[in-house]
Amino acid sequence: MSTTGDHLIELRRDLHRHPEPAWREFYTTCRIVEELERIGVTDIYVGREAIDPDERMAVPDSSELVEWFARAREAGAKEDVLDRLDGGYTGCVAVLRQGEGPTVGLRVDIDGLLREESRADEHAPVAEGFRSEHEGAMHACGHDGHATIGLGVLEAIKESDFEGTLKVFFQPGEEMIAGGRAIAKSSHLADVDYLLALHLGLDHPTGEVVAGIDGFLAVAHLHVEFSGEPAHAGAAPNEGENAVQAMATAVGNLYAIPRHQDGATRVNAGQVGGGTASNIVPESAYIEAEVRGETTELMEYMRERAERVLHGAAEMHGCEVEIETRGRAPSARSDAQLAEIVSAVAGGVEGVDSVLDRDTLGGSEDATYLMREVQRNGGYAAYVGIGTDHPGGHHTATFDVDERSIPIGIDVISGAIREIAATRPE
Amino acid sequence: MSTTGDHLIELRRDLHRHPEPAWREFYTTCRIVEELERIGVTDIYVGREAIDPDERMAVPDSSELVEWFARAREAGAKEDVLDRLDGGYTGCVAVLRQGEGPTVGLRVDIDGLLREESRADEHAPVAEGFRSEHEGAMHACGHDGHATIGLGVLEAIKESDFEGTLKVFFQPGEEMIAGGRAIAKSSHLADVDYLLALHLGLDHPTGEVVAGIDGFLAVAHLHVEFSGEPAHAGAAPNEGENAVQAMATAVGNLYAIPRHQDGATRVNAGQVGGGTASNIVPESAYIEAEVRGETTELMEYMRERAERVLHGAAEMHGCEVEIETRGRAPSARSDAQLAEIVSAVAGGVEGVDSVLDRDTLGGSEDATYLMREVQRNGGYAAYVGIGTDHPGGHHTATFDVDERSIPIGIDVISGAIREIAATRPE
Amino acid sequence: MSTTGDHLIELRRDLHRHPEPAWREFYTTCRIVEELERIGVTDIYVGREAIDPDERMAVPDSSELVEWFARAREAGAKEDVLDRLDGGYTGCVAVLRQGEGPTVGLRVDIDGLLREESRADEHAPVAEGFRSEHEGAMHACGHDGHATIGLGVLEAIKESDFEGTLKVFFQPGEEMIAGGRAIAKSSHLADVDYLLALHLGLDHPTGEVVAGIDGFLAVAHLHVEFSGEPAHAGAAPNEGENAVQAMATAVGNLYAIPRHQDGATRVNAGQVGGGTASNIVPESAYIEAEVRGETTELMEYMRERAERVLHGAAEMHGCEVEIETRGRAPSARSDAQLAEIVSAVAGGVEGVDSVLDRDTLGGSEDATYLMREVQRNGGYAAYVGIGTDHPGGHHTATFDVDERSIPIGIDVISGAIREIAATRPE
Amino acid sequence: MSTTGDHLIELRRDLHRHPEPAWREFYTTCRIVEELERIGVTDIYVGREAIDPDERMAVPDSSELVEWFARAREAGAKEDVLDRLDGGYTGCVAVLRQGEGPTVGLRVDIDGLLREESRADEHAPVAEGFRSEHEGAMHACGHDGHATIGLGVLEAIKESDFEGTLKVFFQPGEEMIAGGRAIAKSSHLADVDYLLALHLGLDHPTGEVVAGIDGFLAVAHLHVEFSGEPAHAGAAPNEGENAVQAMATAVGNLYAIPRHQDGATRVNAGQVGGGTASNIVPESAYIEAEVRGETTELMEYMRERAERVLHGAAEMHGCEVEIETRGRAPSARSDAQLAEIVSAVAGGVEGVDSVLDRDTLGGSEDATYLMREVQRNGGYAAYVGIGTDHPGGHHTATFDVDERSIPIGIDVISGAIREIAATRPE
Repeated sequence: MSTTGDHLIELRRDLHRHPEPAWREFYTTCRIVEELERIGVTDIYVGREAIDPDERMAVPDSSELVEWFARAREAGAKEDVLDRLDGGYTGCVAVLRQGEGPTVGLRVDIDGLLREESRADEHAPVAEGFRSEHEGAMHACGHDGHATIGLGVLEAIKESDFEGTLKVFFQPGEEMIAGGRAIAKSSHLADVDYLLALHLGLDHPTGEVVAGIDGFLAVAHLHVEFSGEPAHAGAAPNEGENAVQAMATAVGNLYAIPRHQDGATRVNAGQVGGGTASNIVPESAYIEAEVRGETTELMEYMRERAERVLHGAAEMHGCEVEIETRGRAPSARSDAQLAEIVSAVAGGVEGVDSVLDRDTLGGSEDATYLMREVQRNGGYAAYVGIGTDHPGGHHTATFDVDERSIPIGIDVISGAIREIAATRPE
Repeated sequence: MSTTGDHLIELRRDLHRHPEPAWREFYTTCRIVEELERIGVTDIYVGREAIDPDERMAVPDSSELVEWFARAREAGAKEDVLDRLDGGYTGCVAVLRQGEGPTVGLRVDIDGLLREESRADEHAPVAEGFRSEHEGAMHACGHDGHATIGLGVLEAIKESDFEGTLKVFFQPGEEMIAGGRAIAKSSHLADVDYLLALHLGLDHPTGEVVAGIDGFLAVAHLHVEFSGEPAHAGAAPNEGENAVQAMATAVGNLYAIPRHQDGATRVNAGQVGGGTASNIVPESAYIEAEVRGETTELMEYMRERAERVLHGAAEMHGCEVEIETRGRAPSARSDAQLAEIVSAVAGGVEGVDSVLDRDTLGGSEDATYLMREVQRNGGYAAYVGIGTDHPGGHHTATFDVDERSIPIGIDVISGAIREIAATRPE
Repeated sequence: MSTTGDHLIELRRDLHRHPEPAWREFYTTCRIVEELERIGVTDIYVGREAIDPDERMAVPDSSELVEWFARAREAGAKEDVLDRLDGGYTGCVAVLRQGEGPTVGLRVDIDGLLREESRADEHAPVAEGFRSEHEGAMHACGHDGHATIGLGVLEAIKESDFEGTLKVFFQPGEEMIAGGRAIAKSSHLADVDYLLALHLGLDHPTGEVVAGIDGFLAVAHLHVEFSGEPAHAGAAPNEGENAVQAMATAVGNLYAIPRHQDGATRVNAGQVGGGTASNIVPESAYIEAEVRGETTELMEYMRERAERVLHGAAEMHGCEVEIETRGRAPSARSDAQLAEIVSAVAGGVEGVDSVLDRDTLGGSEDATYLMREVQRNGGYAAYVGIGTDHPGGHHTATFDVDERSIPIGIDVISGAIREIAATRPE
Repeated sequence: MSTTGDHLIELRRDLHRHPEPAWREFYTTCRIVEELERIGVTDIYVGREAIDPDERMAVPDSSELVEWFARAREAGAKEDVLDRLDGGYTGCVAVLRQGEGPTVGLRVDIDGLLREESRADEHAPVAEGFRSEHEGAMHACGHDGHATIGLGVLEAIKESDFEGTLKVFFQPGEEMIAGGRAIAKSSHLADVDYLLALHLGLDHPTGEVVAGIDGFLAVAHLHVEFSGEPAHAGAAPNEGENAVQAMATAVGNLYAIPRHQDGATRVNAGQVGGGTASNIVPESAYIEAEVRGETTELMEYMRERAERVLHGAAEMHGCEVEIETRGRAPSARSDAQLAEIVSAVAGGVEGVDSVLDRDTLGGSEDATYLMREVQRNGGYAAYVGIGTDHPGGHHTATFDVDERSIPIGIDVISGAIREIAATRPE
């Protein structure tokens, strides 16, 4: 690997050391800006300029923001950038204008997960000394690699004969499907003709590339709170309005929402809780629920039915219910025109030994907001998979990316961008 | 037994042959009036004059009324009386004025049950040739005996030195707790100073008398109908609004209504149904439910909670729900003053070998409407148990009364009425 | 239409007058045999010879069989055939051997539905005098037409230059998905090289033909009975084991069986009931349920989960549960080789003005048993749709077939059979 | 108040500063032993000698024990006593033998609650500087006062003409109904002829005494854990075994356990939780449940039904369930013989202005284990209420006892003990 390669690996490890969840990517955003300046990109938008500030979802409360902000400062985040991110306006858009030609977008996500990283000696970040320094948080889905590839692509395109405009979207909050909409609703996407997004891994090994990924399920994450009245369960059970009974009735009926003739739907009450003690009629309960659909319409069908279930269950038990949509993403499809270019380019990239035309995700991703926005404007979009050997599964404590896949990703994506600009497929 | 006795047994068997359910007691009412005329009672109120016609509950639809009306005519019911009962205004109040003195009321119920009678040879009505002639209906709770005792008491009092007024209430629709309120809200109860009601059996053998029965649970019978939308369960399950799901959710949550600190409550979804075929999303479903309480307030607590459950379950599944109260009775207590008189009198009646002061019913009865009305007006009431050996349990196909208990009942009740008039307890 | 045509319309109307449900197709089978004899087919298998007698599903009880058997006799069914059907062994296989060549099968179903037929004057069977003579039963899905087409095809092939063997399967019990397996497991299918099945209507108008129908959902119909213990709901609720509570818990959880990653699944509790009276803890309850899957494996997944739910619900409420599979069918696909022939032939048939290559059913059909059996033996199968204008939807009281579609069906199917024999596609 | 009084108030405040939950009453037990030694009681049993060590319930795990043990040492607990409590064997029995006479027992409970104490200035422990020093724990039910009264009674009896034996049981773990059985099953109760237990407050004001409290509901606290299999809720929902669905089904059906004809029952799922994230099928869930009954038999009825529900719900969803009884107490009644003595004595105590013969608790208490054990051996028991003005309700953050009620309690109880010994009621 070249010196640039070594540098990027160092960068990726630094990001890995500082995983930050949705709207708390303070250190990460600052670090990206530092690199952009090193590369010589001058057209940089951060904070409120990078996103539609009204469209953020699942924004944590201010004490949480303050704490992560302080951590970033302590970790040495660039002060002038950091100040512009205050209040949880993280993320960044980098624009490289290089002559006449189409505008190509690249979206990479940059956030980490709230889960602890493995301490096992055989876990490479432990062995190599770049394990997470933020207790309880981890880059367990490879977004440290995604951000690195985004920067590598910018550098590669800058040094190439590419003619046109390249915009790289360093997006916050993908894990909570909380940031895609805020980027999609910003002004930066309006003139994008072609959009690529990428993901490392997804159970594909190093050396394998998937030219176009489909099967994104539209999704909405619902945070649900029931509130009733407490009472002593022995002395006055009739005086309670039992929020746990409401929640339990809702859970049973959420899973029982009818299947839909038009395609796949999903529902999950993934985390629930309620009550305070065995002898008190529970006055509060919550559900972290999600609904999905093969199409956005199917997801909306599930959401409407879910809300009906939740309201009915609350009424039945004399409780109030509040339903907050904490994250959301539509479905989307990769356009064949772009996937074909990726496929052709990938075949010639060093280190690539297998190219798949299509694969199906089966999960959700909020890159779909950006993809649909571009497609709605008449443009084209594709979601590319860059294989990487990962010891543990995505979101587990031992997940790690094979760093050899980072230069492969840079080569495939930058090659595809140049080819797109050259051929302008329709 | 005297000639009168023989005659009354014949009468009881004739009533047994013609069991009629709530508001269909056409033959029965006519037969009672015939006997009243034989006895020489002249002050007789039937049909709309006997009840508050607006307070009938669980009135069957008109085709049902027409059918039973025709049966009664065919069975030889007295035409002039029958005509006054048209539309399901059954029942009768007989008044015997005999000098100065208090007004004593006696309530007997006269309706049968919708269940088939045993055809076994050892079942006395079969052996003796007075099995029900109305297929699917049966006097399985002894009301044929109650009506007979009511007439016997009238005759005995008429021939006695009793001074005062005796009113006998021949009440329709007790089995469906559908007729008590209509009698209680009539004008006839306003001047009643003392009220007795009676029941044969209740697991007490012939020769045993219970002077005052308590523990009537207040009750409401709710007829519940859910209506949704049908759909093909294979081709378009999402197009349905599933009434069976609504019903099932309601059933689970009805039984889960919290216990009450103030005393016993009950709830039952005793009969349910819904849907048309395995491959159709069910568009309709019903519940025959009941709620009870140790007091009327506790029953009302259950009823309010039940309605909340039913509405919530319907909303949850996009259905409409209709809730109709088809029967209802409050709780009540027997007054010690009357029970003591009954107890004292019963001890001297031929054939009585055991007198209990108190017993608890654990079920419901709409005589409570009359008892509470009299008590509310400052009067006194008691509910008396007249033991009878009954081969099968109440409401079973082999129930029958031991006819020896009929003269015992007449003697106990008429004796108590005379003693009440003589002593006017307070 | 030719004289043959007139005769077939008469036949169809006679069958329409005598709709008979599963394993009660006594008159129908006899009538078919009469026609076969008229046509001159000599190789006829009826009753136990036509099916595997151990594989019948959803056989009604003997009193039901006796009643329909008597009706058939009364309607004039051919006595010698009728006797061979005793015990509910209905259906017939007709074999026409005509020189060397492949064996081609045609499956037509012959049963009616248990639903009342419209009495409206504008309903053609009323206007033309061939409304159902069996109260409560109706040919509401066109099987009277299917049987007629089967006979018409036999006659057409007999008069043609077809070389090979034609077997026509007149199958009982399709509506209850109860007869397909018994035919498929008989010996008659073993040597069938090509199989066609057909259906009239399915929302396609007269003149439209669908060359190959897919999307049959595998299905199982489960008859479920819960039995517990009754108790008086007021006096002793704790003594009951509540079968309605068990059923209601099961219903909620049946619909909540998790969706499957591999494709569409379905579940329905289409008809339920339980209990006897509002004041009795219900001792019994039932569910007529069904589960479906896009593949047989998916249906089996649903069935296993459903059984687990049913057992758990019973255990929870101290009840016993019995689960009986009353009907069942696998999924299946039409082979392109045959569909292409049907498509080509149909294009040249008089009266056909639209030919669709494919359509998706979204429901279930037990012709799939026969299709899979033939395919398993290395043969080919296709399910053909013959459009017909039908005023009411399938299974509704006003359903009727446009009789012009009968000769079209005969021409399309007999033409395809001749072409198959001529070209022997692989 | 006397010097002794001042001293006891200081002691009560010291105990208030060091609230310790079940089996963690390390400081408390040591402090009690110190006082016993000051008073001159020599016959002292602590740790394993005070209880049946096999009968402790709800013992926390060892890390929890180690932490509270360390806290007690740090707070200055007497080292030699502390060592004997290692492993969570807390509590103490003090025996005072003083001539010939009956053996009288007094049971006081000594544990605190896991809840935070108010920091409001008007909260007396804040104002007077004796707020809890153990964060998250609090004496919110007056057991600091109970222990103090126990010591005061010992001192008063020692200085009196009492002839007989007095045993004071300083019982751990009442709040979790976890310690009563371990004391009751120790050898110390075998020769107790008369037992008193006491409680401060219970909504009675300072100056009011309840001579005999009844209406203890028998109770069992069940800790329930469901374990299933996780799966990705979008990609493979069918691979999960959903522990939250099992829990929710169980909750609904627990509340729906039938009411019992013999008296009051209770059930509560007071605290529940499960799952890890909205997009993962939950693999685990728990319920902190309790069941109660007016009698021990009714509680056992509820427990058996609850276990059936829990097993059925687990089976239904392919989960395992573990049910652990974490606390338990029977019902009990105060004997009239003792209550009458308490009533008579209380009437003459300074500061008492109201004496009630009876009151009903409506909750649960594991003093009932000791009461029943004594009654089973032919002895007598009564549970006495000593009124105290308490600003907040029991178990709330602002609960506090009026210290004037402590000497009242000492006088009432020691007076009753002397009278019992003098009169030996039967």
